[in-house]
Amino acid sequence: MYECSLERMTDKIKTMSQFGDAGHGGITRYSLSPEALQARGEFVRRMEAIGATIKFDDMANLYATLPGSEPDLPGIVMASHCDSVKNGGNYDGILGVMGAMEVLETVADQNIPHKHNLTAMIWTNEEGSLYPPAMMSSGVICYDYLPEDIRVNFKHEDMLKSTSVLDATKTFGAALDASGYKGDKANRLNNKDYKAMFELHIEQGPILEAAGNDIGVVTCVLGMVNYTIKVYGQSDHAGTTPMKYRQDALYGASKVLQYLHDELDKLDPELVYTTGEIFCHPNVHTVIPDYVEFSLDARHEKPEVIEQVVKVIENIPKEVVKCKTDYEIAWTRDTVYYDKELVSYVQESVDELGYSNQKINSGAGHDAQFAAYMLPTTMVFVPSKDGHSHCEPEYTSPEQCTQGASVLLNAVLKCDAK
Amino acid sequence: MYECSLERMTDKIKTMSQFGDAGHGGITRYSLSPEALQARGEFVRRMEAIGATIKFDDMANLYATLPGSEPDLPGIVMASHCDSVKNGGNYDGILGVMGAMEVLETVADQNIPHKHNLTAMIWTNEEGSLYPPAMMSSGVICYDYLPEDIRVNFKHEDMLKSTSVLDATKTFGAALDASGYKGDKANRLNNKDYKAMFELHIEQGPILEAAGNDIGVVTCVLGMVNYTIKVYGQSDHAGTTPMKYRQDALYGASKVLQYLHDELDKLDPELVYTTGEIFCHPNVHTVIPDYVEFSLDARHEKPEVIEQVVKVIENIPKEVVKCKTDYEIAWTRDTVYYDKELVSYVQESVDELGYSNQKINSGAGHDAQFAAYMLPTTMVFVPSKDGHSHCEPEYTSPEQCTQGASVLLNAVLKCDAK
Repeated sequence: MYECSLERMTDKIKTMSQFGDAGHGGITRYSLSPEALQARGEFVRRMEAIGATIKFDDMANLYATLPGSEPDLPGIVMASHCDSVKNGGNYDGILGVMGAMEVLETVADQNIPHKHNLTAMIWTNEEGSLYPPAMMSSGVICYDYLPEDIRVNFKHEDMLKSTSVLDATKTFGAALDASGYKGDKANRLNNKDYKAMFELHIEQGPILEAAGNDIGVVTCVLGMVNYTIKVYGQSDHAGTTPMKYRQDALYGASKVLQYLHDELDKLDPELVYTTGEIFCHPNVHTVIPDYVEFSLDARHEKPEVIEQVVKVIENIPKEVVKCKTDYEIAWTRDTVYYDKELVSYVQESVDELGYSNQKINSGAGHDAQFAAYMLPTTMVFVPSKDGHSHCEPEYTSPEQCTQGASVLLNAVLKCDAK
Repeated sequence: MYECSLERMTDKIKTMSQFGDAGHGGITRYSLSPEALQARGEFVRRMEAIGATIKFDDMANLYATLPGSEPDLPGIVMASHCDSVKNGGNYDGILGVMGAMEVLETVADQNIPHKHNLTAMIWTNEEGSLYPPAMMSSGVICYDYLPEDIRVNFKHEDMLKSTSVLDATKTFGAALDASGYKGDKANRLNNKDYKAMFELHIEQGPILEAAGNDIGVVTCVLGMVNYTIKVYGQSDHAGTTPMKYRQDALYGASKVLQYLHDELDKLDPELVYTTGEIFCHPNVHTVIPDYVEFSLDARHEKPEVIEQVVKVIENIPKEVVKCKTDYEIAWTRDTVYYDKELVSYVQESVDELGYSNQKINSGAGHDAQFAAYMLPTTMVFVPSKDGHSHCEPEYTSPEQCTQGASVLLNAVLKCDAK
């Protein structure tokens, strides 16, 4: 078994955390922003220092490759992203990049023999913070469910509301052109030149920490549905409308939310569901709301549980406190299972390294889930302190990060041996 | 008894409805906007045409006066406003101005003798749509609870969020300077030169219509409290956080809202309370909300009922679904009773005219409520179709508007006779 360097990993964490430092322990590092370009520059410098070859494709995905002893064989790629959400943490995404760098550095440093080309890769715009949708590049390249030009030219005017990012009306395409990292389409990840993809990532939840486990051996990304629930009332004056004449859409929405909690709590205990977003019109304290909509995101591995969720939504009472209700599906994804053979390499590596571990699924979406549609793919999780992620207190210790990189290294070498 | 002219009132409604016509039956006419200046111009033209003298004060309040036979006696003023909310109706405010014009026109046309000077007046910026707070000018002049310079120089950055008005960062003071209606402070309404104020207004609620009454004899403006209720949770990832680890501030807020409805519904049936505004952070569909606040506006004539409301708020459970709760008072006003003698003139006039009527209170705020702190004041209400107001379907028939003006005329003449 090989192990990665705690000292080198600690140094990378410290360095990368400066790029987009928001001043209170976390970062804001939108894709292709000056801060993200600093992180890319650091990646390129360190990878060139160990003799890796740098390439980038037309979506600015960035590849650093150490040639194998049989360089014509399809290679093995380790990838994640270096962009963050607004006021995000120092680990989501960038840990997978640093882990991949660490694997190549360890291979170079210890002169570890390998047949296949080994590539560390940065996916562009995983978060979609400034340019939705999330997982844009892996979506375009591995699982093209939206026409590419729609993605690249997408203007998300609504971002002004939710993120206060003032240049949100610029297109991603314009940012791509200006980045200096727009390369050749022929360089894209594909399933002829590459045989497998691994992604190291923080768990972003509390399960590993609660169980006291070092490593999560990821088996799948949960299937999900996302609905918009709508409640229609009547706007009237808060001071002049007796209670009995009211059709209060916000009170109606609150009743529907309670119905959803009551019914969904009866389903499988592994189900997670969330109302994260609410919109109230006209949202003035002296006016009874006439329209409220809110999101419902529900995730579970088993399609039959997701079907039960959909049933609950379909059974929302058509009228609540004199308000009409309606719902609309926003999107859906099936559970994506990772490649059994790659999962077994991860499991064997963890066991051989002697780290405590468990099988786990991913409730969050990752580029690996789109990559899995194109080539054998899997993921490795390390714990998130207090389960926090997408926020500045997000934390995984350097020791845990290094353990994750060591698992990645050994799993990649098992894959290389086949 | 005298009656006003249906034909002339109909013509005024038609004319005034053009200024700020939003294209679907209502208007957007912010205070001191070009549209509001058109309405003022129309007021001045029509008032000069009957020989009225025009004056304006330093807050751009506009006065048109027909001299009485004893012009040194304190005068009688009839006032309302010509500004509207965004996509408001053709009656809120402007009806009181048109009613006052109609009274002067009838007096001039029929040569009705009167001892006191009679004044039709436009209050500036009653709605506060673009420049909060509402009832700004009457607040400054009659009930100066905020230093005048704070009001006039107030920049309400938050308006960008709620109204999408792009020049909301301009001050009211700048708009005042540019209006051409900024006059002498000595011209302000006061209780030496004026003995009484009347305001004709639409009810803005469903009570008169439901009772089949033509006229509401207004006795008071309801006391109110306005609170902000706060719920603190923990932001975590929607896909990776098992339900049992969650502190969901939006679900907590929905529980608190239900508690408030349950408890407040036990109090006096005349109580009205409203949650019109909600703010959810970060308001992203994939993130569990960590902070939600919402408004609670409650109104009742009796202070003891308002006290019970405050008790209910104080008894909100400190912790709901693992979220901490808190509350903050935003503002409060005591019930304002109108002048008994003026109310009796209105009641006698309605009875003599033979219009069906009832005593009513005002749940909404009006300039008259601030004026009442300075000089004897009262109001007259006419019905609102379906109770709607502050929206484009707001409607009161020309016949009802004219009835309101006739009541105003006769009540003013009774006041003149004393």
